[in-house]
Amino acid sequence: MTTSLPHAVDPRALTEVLDGRWGHVRRVARADLHDPDLLPAYGESVQEARERVTRMARKIAESGRVVLGFPKEYGGEGDAGGSVTAIEMLAFTDLSLMVKAGVQWGLFGGAVQALGTERHHDAYLRDIMSFDLPGCFAMTETGHGSDVQQLRTTCTYDPETQTFDLHTPHEAARKDYIGNAAQDGRMAVVFAQLVTQGRRHGVHAWLVPIRDEQGDPMPGVTIGDDGPKAGLLGVDNGRLTFDHVTVPRDMLLDRYGSVAPDGTYTSSIENETRRFFTMLGTLVRGRVSVGGSAAAATKLSLDIAVRYGETRRQFSAPGADREVLLNDYLVHQRKLLPALAATYAYSFAQEELVGTMHDVQGAEDLDEGAQRELESRAAGLKAAQTWHATRTIQMAREACGGAGYLQENRLPHLKADTDVFTTFEGDNTVLLQLVAKGLLTGYRDAFGSLDGWGKVGFIADMVRETVLERTAARGLIARLVDAVPGRDDEVPLLDRGWQLKMLEDREKHVLEGAIRRLRRGAETPGVQPFDVFNDVQDHVLRTAQTHVDRIVLEAFVAGIERTTDAGARALLERVCDLYALTTIEADRAWFLEHGRLTATRSKALTATVNVLLKDLRPHLVTLVDAFAIPEDWKGAAILREEAGRQEAMYTDDMATHDTGLRRGTATSLEVPPGQ
Amino acid sequence: MTTSLPHAVDPRALTEVLDGRWGHVRRVARADLHDPDLLPAYGESVQEARERVTRMARKIAESGRVVLGFPKEYGGEGDAGGSVTAIEMLAFTDLSLMVKAGVQWGLFGGAVQALGTERHHDAYLRDIMSFDLPGCFAMTETGHGSDVQQLRTTCTYDPETQTFDLHTPHEAARKDYIGNAAQDGRMAVVFAQLVTQGRRHGVHAWLVPIRDEQGDPMPGVTIGDDGPKAGLLGVDNGRLTFDHVTVPRDMLLDRYGSVAPDGTYTSSIENETRRFFTMLGTLVRGRVSVGGSAAAATKLSLDIAVRYGETRRQFSAPGADREVLLNDYLVHQRKLLPALAATYAYSFAQEELVGTMHDVQGAEDLDEGAQRELESRAAGLKAAQTWHATRTIQMAREACGGAGYLQENRLPHLKADTDVFTTFEGDNTVLLQLVAKGLLTGYRDAFGSLDGWGKVGFIADMVRETVLERTAARGLIARLVDAVPGRDDEVPLLDRGWQLKMLEDREKHVLEGAIRRLRRGAETPGVQPFDVFNDVQDHVLRTAQTHVDRIVLEAFVAGIERTTDAGARALLERVCDLYALTTIEADRAWFLEHGRLTATRSKALTATVNVLLKDLRPHLVTLVDAFAIPEDWKGAAILREEAGRQEAMYTDDMATHDTGLRRGTATSLEVPPGQ
Repeated sequence: MTTSLPHAVDPRALTEVLDGRWGHVRRVARADLHDPDLLPAYGESVQEARERVTRMARKIAESGRVVLGFPKEYGGEGDAGGSVTAIEMLAFTDLSLMVKAGVQWGLFGGAVQALGTERHHDAYLRDIMSFDLPGCFAMTETGHGSDVQQLRTTCTYDPETQTFDLHTPHEAARKDYIGNAAQDGRMAVVFAQLVTQGRRHGVHAWLVPIRDEQGDPMPGVTIGDDGPKAGLLGVDNGRLTFDHVTVPRDMLLDRYGSVAPDGTYTSSIENETRRFFTMLGTLVRGRVSVGGSAAAATKLSLDIAVRYGETRRQFSAPGADREVLLNDYLVHQRKLLPALAATYAYSFAQEELVGTMHDVQGAEDLDEGAQRELESRAAGLKAAQTWHATRTIQMAREACGGAGYLQENRLPHLKADTDVFTTFEGDNTVLLQLVAKGLLTGYRDAFGSLDGWGKVGFIADMVRETVLERTAARGLIARLVDAVPGRDDEVPLLDRGWQLKMLEDREKHVLEGAIRRLRRGAETPGVQPFDVFNDVQDHVLRTAQTHVDRIVLEAFVAGIERTTDAGARALLERVCDLYALTTIEADRAWFLEHGRLTATRSKALTATVNVLLKDLRPHLVTLVDAFAIPEDWKGAAILREEAGRQEAMYTDDMATHDTGLRRGTATSLEVPPGQ
Repeated sequence: MTTSLPHAVDPRALTEVLDGRWGHVRRVARADLHDPDLLPAYGESVQEARERVTRMARKIAESGRVVLGFPKEYGGEGDAGGSVTAIEMLAFTDLSLMVKAGVQWGLFGGAVQALGTERHHDAYLRDIMSFDLPGCFAMTETGHGSDVQQLRTTCTYDPETQTFDLHTPHEAARKDYIGNAAQDGRMAVVFAQLVTQGRRHGVHAWLVPIRDEQGDPMPGVTIGDDGPKAGLLGVDNGRLTFDHVTVPRDMLLDRYGSVAPDGTYTSSIENETRRFFTMLGTLVRGRVSVGGSAAAATKLSLDIAVRYGETRRQFSAPGADREVLLNDYLVHQRKLLPALAATYAYSFAQEELVGTMHDVQGAEDLDEGAQRELESRAAGLKAAQTWHATRTIQMAREACGGAGYLQENRLPHLKADTDVFTTFEGDNTVLLQLVAKGLLTGYRDAFGSLDGWGKVGFIADMVRETVLERTAARGLIARLVDAVPGRDDEVPLLDRGWQLKMLEDREKHVLEGAIRRLRRGAETPGVQPFDVFNDVQDHVLRTAQTHVDRIVLEAFVAGIERTTDAGARALLERVCDLYALTTIEADRAWFLEHGRLTATRSKALTATVNVLLKDLRPHLVTLVDAFAIPEDWKGAAILREEAGRQEAMYTDDMATHDTGLRRGTATSLEVPPGQ
């Protein structure tokens, strides 16, 4: 059914493609990041983990690798893509360190850079970069995580004293989950409702000292500790409460809005909502980092599970003198390989996202449309990659059996540390809704409509061209799709154009259906606007999911197009087939319901996936070799020990063969009780 | 589309049905288990957790609640169902304690009871029951978890000294993951290959002292610690290695096989494999306990997520003066309610399983067929319930946002502690294969065929009547199914008979297909037996999954039949609809592929599920109230604090209303970066 693959593919050729545009940053990280403090540590107490990670943050600052994104005039390199890539590489070593770095240089430093002006940069950027000024990004409140516009902390200007009064009115307004707050932070970028001359102007940010030189809380600042968490032991998440704290006027980060000494508010962006989203938009980098770091953890978990499955044996096949390798079982392949294929697909999509972010943020003039699309893409890929991480690491843990439950095999940390990735930097469900909204309204009028999307009249009037914008390798993809003949069900399942067309058709159909249902709801007399929206919420989220699936497949196709090594290219084509077909297979009910697949073809799809698994089985280890993860970053005892055990057992079995030892067969399965 | 539900249902009426036959054990546990050592503790070190759990195990032993299953003559009550229920109730308070109790009284004590004879009972049972003799169940080895018949530890009889020589030949034969080993265990039931007179007789068990009175390892015994794990901090899992340890002859647990002083081996069960499975079969109780305990953790997680969603608000609806409750969002309902419905379904299936176990094990004569069916049922429900727990607790964690990541809200512990449940007491994938094998070969000839199932000839000859044996409420279910008219697609989706028939048809069809494919493979010349099996492994596992889905639905129907309270019954009917339809919906691709659903009807199914969500929304809290979980068992700060925060915020908002605070709408979603 498929053309044959080369016998062996050089993983280095795959690594080169996966590494992409910031390959130099990755290579330097692989060569340099081997400090013992960086490598996986198990059984630490919270305090030990915090101390180690803080120590490591200082060392990393000295290395200069995490400040690539800062302006050249302050010692950075103005390299946004490089900064995100550097943070992602830290995720391979220690996820607490990655988060700590993300807080310090991505969120805190990034906010000062993006929302502040020259006086803030001159005063603080160098100390932030060197970690001499550890800081917090104090946005989320106990009562508001997803709906940031509704933060309850207030910051009220008093022209008499020319200062702001920063205040937490009640516990729901307490800043919560704030990294660097419980132990290290000396300052915080605090988000609050700006009030001046008796009027509110929406959420703004201030630079506020929270600890003095001795590390004690500043007057009026109460600092709490979020206490033990599921994971990320090395990150000191805490809570900040402000009791009428005085903040000097010039500590307002005033790039997008400022207050004159007399209290007059001015902004270059008239519309409050638009101003808010412009401010948030500058901070997209954090979301991109989380997606990339989730992918790093996913790769580690697959590396461990695949190598273990290539060594570990259980149950004998009739007539064989050794037991069967886990990786030789179809059901084990069904677990590992589709997850691996999706990981490759997301890698290409993430690489493209980082490049887009770098270019959009580095452009002379802000292209609002491009910025909106970037935010949508970042949101969708963050959600997809973090959910993929949660699922895949769980699967890898189970695929390693009881060994996967021991910290010495790394998987428990990967699981616990990444678990919150589906929540922070935006709850995934809310992020998908954001993506959906972009699709439903189109990017071009997003600013005007974000505010009123719930209003019935707007939905009824809404017009969206559902001609999908292709993302990457536009020409190639158009050619592939256009070459698919009309009668879909005669096209081979491995035809790339057909696969692309299936995902494209689905996105378009789901989107049009959602628009139709929203409009119908809006036109029904007596229905509350909330109910119009809520009755189709599942359908709306589906538009985002189908959109992400398509852009990811397109990115994969574009990635293959860039691959020059013939063997690597052939293997990637097969992996891409597996990603495309398992994506379609997972949702084949929809394709059946909508006449895109016949029953016969749907069954053939499943059979074809199984053929692909057989084809790819010999390349399983090559596919994880390509991640090029240094041995000491893995920290999994089973990778060091299992092969020796299997050898010892085999040797002993051969020696005692005469004693009449008999084996069961791979098909005579029984399992023990016992823990 | 549906008949209306009563306005309010008394949760106590639901509790009574859910509590079932061992309701008295549950009620006593709810009344009595409030020792501070039992309640959730956060931020403990491994040593603190171990000490607390050991302390608690002693207290629990004194209470007598965990020894219900032991014989009356030793102070127990011979109540197998009660013992499993008592362990399940411990799972609500502390999962480490539940596992520790399961090891001590279920596995270790259970093995002495079931595999030993009177002299072992007289010598040890009382001390085991009182925890004066903490012990281990040393079956699993580092090299063999799933394939117990292939354990590599040997125990060789020497007639000269009339002792056994217990030996670990290499590291793969080391006993691993053994609860009670690292700290508390004084003896262990050790499973090893019995060798006497130069012949092997398969796996047997010995009672072996591993520590002396001072707690030091016995000569020749090396004890290791499995070190930090993902969870279950209070369980001291360890490793045991035996270097030619001398074991007296009478320490062989010899109920099913004994060695005379001269080394002659005798057994009441001739066939070695049959003997092995008979020995393992007596230990089914552990697997039943794990399923029940997974369900307890699932209920706790749903209780927390549902109550939080009933208090927590985020985003405003147009025109409303408060933000929208999480539980009012369709997508939130789509997460919580199907999980809740499945939890109800499994509760009924588990209740039935415990009853069957109690009756089968308590019968005068062993009914081998009933015992086999019990083991299959226990395996299938263990797999289904533990995977459901992993998924549901993860979902609940995400549904609580960042709060779900803090230990103070309990969910991290529930997640980490139950994670290994999908592995221990049998890897779930292997367990499903065991279930499938039972279905494929039929129970009646299982003993004869277990050994040779991989052999080609056998498969080719295999005949199985695919008339499914109904499990519960046979008459009622037969009537419901028979009443479904021939043209399925005109029957209402809420017709219970149609739902039952769909799951029954699917099981039968999948099973027949698997048999056909196996036979075809076996008849193909040149195909290796392993490949015959492996090529259809995914299909084989599907038979088990479809089987479990059916018996669970049947148990739900039987449970409703026992419900006398009209309101509770009406509500359960609706919950059962949701379980049945979401189960069918999840696999609707299969039903479409096989002509059991038209495209139109498949779409209607999804719409009907959404209608059921609306119907059940007002009863969400009632459905978790029915779990009757005492407040102090929950240990979730958000359940104590969030309502007050929401009130304070609302009060403050109303007071500051004049200042022009404006809110976004539930449909204008944006989310913050920030961690």
